[in-house]
Amino acid sequence: MAITVYRGNIVTSESLTKLKVIENGYVVVEDGIIKAVLEEMTDEYRNYVVRNFGDGIIIPAFSDLHMHAPQFTERGIGMDCLLFDWLNNFTFPQESGFRDIEYARKIYPQVIREFLRHGTFQVNLFSTIHYDSCDLLFKLLMESGMYAYSGKINMDSNSPDYYVESTEESISSTERFIVEHQGLSDKVKPIIIPRFAPTCSLELLKGLGELAGKYDVGLHTHLVESIAEAAWSKELFPMCASDGEIYEMTGLLQGNGPKIFAHVIFPTEVEERILKQYNCTSVHCPDATTNITAGIMPASKMLDNGYSIAIGSDVGGGHFTGIYRQISRAVQLSKMKEFYEEDYKRLIFAEAFYMATVNGGKVFGNIGKIEPGYKFNALVIDGMQDDGYKITTEQCVERFCYIGDDRNIVARFIDGQFIDPEEVYKRLIEKY
Amino acid sequence: MAITVYRGNIVTSESLTKLKVIENGYVVVEDGIIKAVLEEMTDEYRNYVVRNFGDGIIIPAFSDLHMHAPQFTERGIGMDCLLFDWLNNFTFPQESGFRDIEYARKIYPQVIREFLRHGTFQVNLFSTIHYDSCDLLFKLLMESGMYAYSGKINMDSNSPDYYVESTEESISSTERFIVEHQGLSDKVKPIIIPRFAPTCSLELLKGLGELAGKYDVGLHTHLVESIAEAAWSKELFPMCASDGEIYEMTGLLQGNGPKIFAHVIFPTEVEERILKQYNCTSVHCPDATTNITAGIMPASKMLDNGYSIAIGSDVGGGHFTGIYRQISRAVQLSKMKEFYEEDYKRLIFAEAFYMATVNGGKVFGNIGKIEPGYKFNALVIDGMQDDGYKITTEQCVERFCYIGDDRNIVARFIDGQFIDPEEVYKRLIEKY
Repeated sequence: MAITVYRGNIVTSESLTKLKVIENGYVVVEDGIIKAVLEEMTDEYRNYVVRNFGDGIIIPAFSDLHMHAPQFTERGIGMDCLLFDWLNNFTFPQESGFRDIEYARKIYPQVIREFLRHGTFQVNLFSTIHYDSCDLLFKLLMESGMYAYSGKINMDSNSPDYYVESTEESISSTERFIVEHQGLSDKVKPIIIPRFAPTCSLELLKGLGELAGKYDVGLHTHLVESIAEAAWSKELFPMCASDGEIYEMTGLLQGNGPKIFAHVIFPTEVEERILKQYNCTSVHCPDATTNITAGIMPASKMLDNGYSIAIGSDVGGGHFTGIYRQISRAVQLSKMKEFYEEDYKRLIFAEAFYMATVNGGKVFGNIGKIEPGYKFNALVIDGMQDDGYKITTEQCVERFCYIGDDRNIVARFIDGQFIDPEEVYKRLIEKY
Repeated sequence: MAITVYRGNIVTSESLTKLKVIENGYVVVEDGIIKAVLEEMTDEYRNYVVRNFGDGIIIPAFSDLHMHAPQFTERGIGMDCLLFDWLNNFTFPQESGFRDIEYARKIYPQVIREFLRHGTFQVNLFSTIHYDSCDLLFKLLMESGMYAYSGKINMDSNSPDYYVESTEESISSTERFIVEHQGLSDKVKPIIIPRFAPTCSLELLKGLGELAGKYDVGLHTHLVESIAEAAWSKELFPMCASDGEIYEMTGLLQGNGPKIFAHVIFPTEVEERILKQYNCTSVHCPDATTNITAGIMPASKMLDNGYSIAIGSDVGGGHFTGIYRQISRAVQLSKMKEFYEEDYKRLIFAEAFYMATVNGGKVFGNIGKIEPGYKFNALVIDGMQDDGYKITTEQCVERFCYIGDDRNIVARFIDGQFIDPEEVYKRLIEKY
């Protein structure tokens, strides 16, 4: 039994609205799993070597529940475009480049390094339609040590000529992907990813729905992302009352895997029913929905009503990979919604932190808290104090989410293993 | 004549809505002032030593037209508070600490280092009511090489017992401040800073108005920052039709110095007249007005109507010192305004960049462009390219404003002098 003890200030969620802070506490980790969290050292662990982080703050690592790995190179450019211009001028031409495996070999290790640098160790990813690149991404994720859902995306309709599949191809390559990747890893798992309803024919969605049932695989897609998108879906699928029903009707919600819907800005009663009934996770992506002028998810209202909401960077619609920044953005954006919409109540910091750690992490297992029984997927943050004016430990975590960066993450652990992003990157490009 | 030639990609505003990009250009600097900007090397300058920045991008340094130097230590904390809670629980207790000059000696050099790190070389600052600390800040600014307006703030009403002055004290110490600091420097100049109308009696504002005329000094204050603030001003000054008229009526707009108004979120026709008539600069502070749930300045509309708008970090209402990030935030926030308000048109990136460089810089003289006749107050930015996917020079600047940080600023110049923020900081704490 390999036991390691870490000493530092500990910050983790106590509840949806409250953080728990243990100053100078101890985290006892056995075989990658937290065995005890102590306010004071006890006799039981006194003889183990203690790794002391001093004023460092031990927090759960972050989960990014919606990110487009192939859009990594689009971060923070073309932001003057409207959504469909941005898709046609930037995203589709760029994503289509992943037909070339050499391009994927260049880009995807950089994506993983960026996640690790910013302390995001659990991810749920969009990819492209290209089998080999998707396979590579999956294997890179396995090699990295991260937790992930990844697969190949599907688009057989309303897509550019140079970036589209036939319905048959799309279904058969998705089945092949599931068969070849399911069971390869306990940490990296396949998921079905129809891009969004408008780029999928009814036949395609039905085919994917069958796979979801046959192989018990989850779903990751966009849901009521914007008024225009929701209207277009309704036009294309007139038999469905709302966006969400398209996925239900085609059988995509029948597997036991996670059902993850990005954005959910304009949920109707149909979506509300589906999100509850199928135990779905909705993903709030504050920067992305701002950048594409989509509107603001009713996150605080949904939390109050018991929906599970996680956080996503949505790079490249969002520009920045660090989920910690999306925590502060979620608070900020909720204030704008409160300003503009009567009866809407802002998010508080503790809620946004909970979304990014607890709600994101639980999709991957016992992840997202510094508590016994949880995986020790954790960060140590430091350097948030100014000289001459001391703030509290909790305020350090808030400040980190507002103005910190990867320099303030001084140690990273996945399953209790110390992670060096540059070392992992080097291994990835050497091996693949 | 000291001439230096810099080679790099050059990006500067061509107009309000367009950036000018010169790839592999040359900037000829003589005695701190740009003498020529060349697309190709000419015989005239061929024999000078060229400092080559390679793929580095030479851009104008940023101006922060509204920042509270004593609130530096409040960056990114207490963000769940509403404005008046935040003032009473965080800001007033903290600012009152500047009665102790030793505290000011600790904090203010850190503020200046932070500006320099983030490439902000022209600043317009709030301080506190304490003469000695304000004097120190002014002298530190002079020593740093930066361009600045700074002074002491005024508050004799509606302020906590522990952080308030008498009307006479407030006027006399302001006069003393102007007399003792005016003319000390061509680059750092005094300005009159009534905190905002509610913390100033009519008598105080009239006294300050006399000083503005007598010494020809400018004005820096908050204007129609929030609905609550504007309503409170109107209640306290029932003889004035709107916030702006208070400053006009009391003579504060009569000097020839700059008149700088922060926020201007709800300008009435009175404010619109005053802003034009007195050639005022309004300051957009996107993060701050989000954090305090104040609303969104009608920036694009005001630009279209010919008002001069600059950018401010408004630390600590805003959480981050880097003005480059406020450029992207201004674009983002304008999209939310477009989403919620009919007929409102978003800002484009070039406009926000213009606000942060040209409109901010001109308050300090010929500053804010890479053009002949302008001071060479400039940055070189680099490292915005990913491996394997090349973006344009203009996109690099956009990306820098969205996701870059001080690590991407690889060289800094004020008046043509190379600036090392750590070296300046060391000098400041040694000397003061």
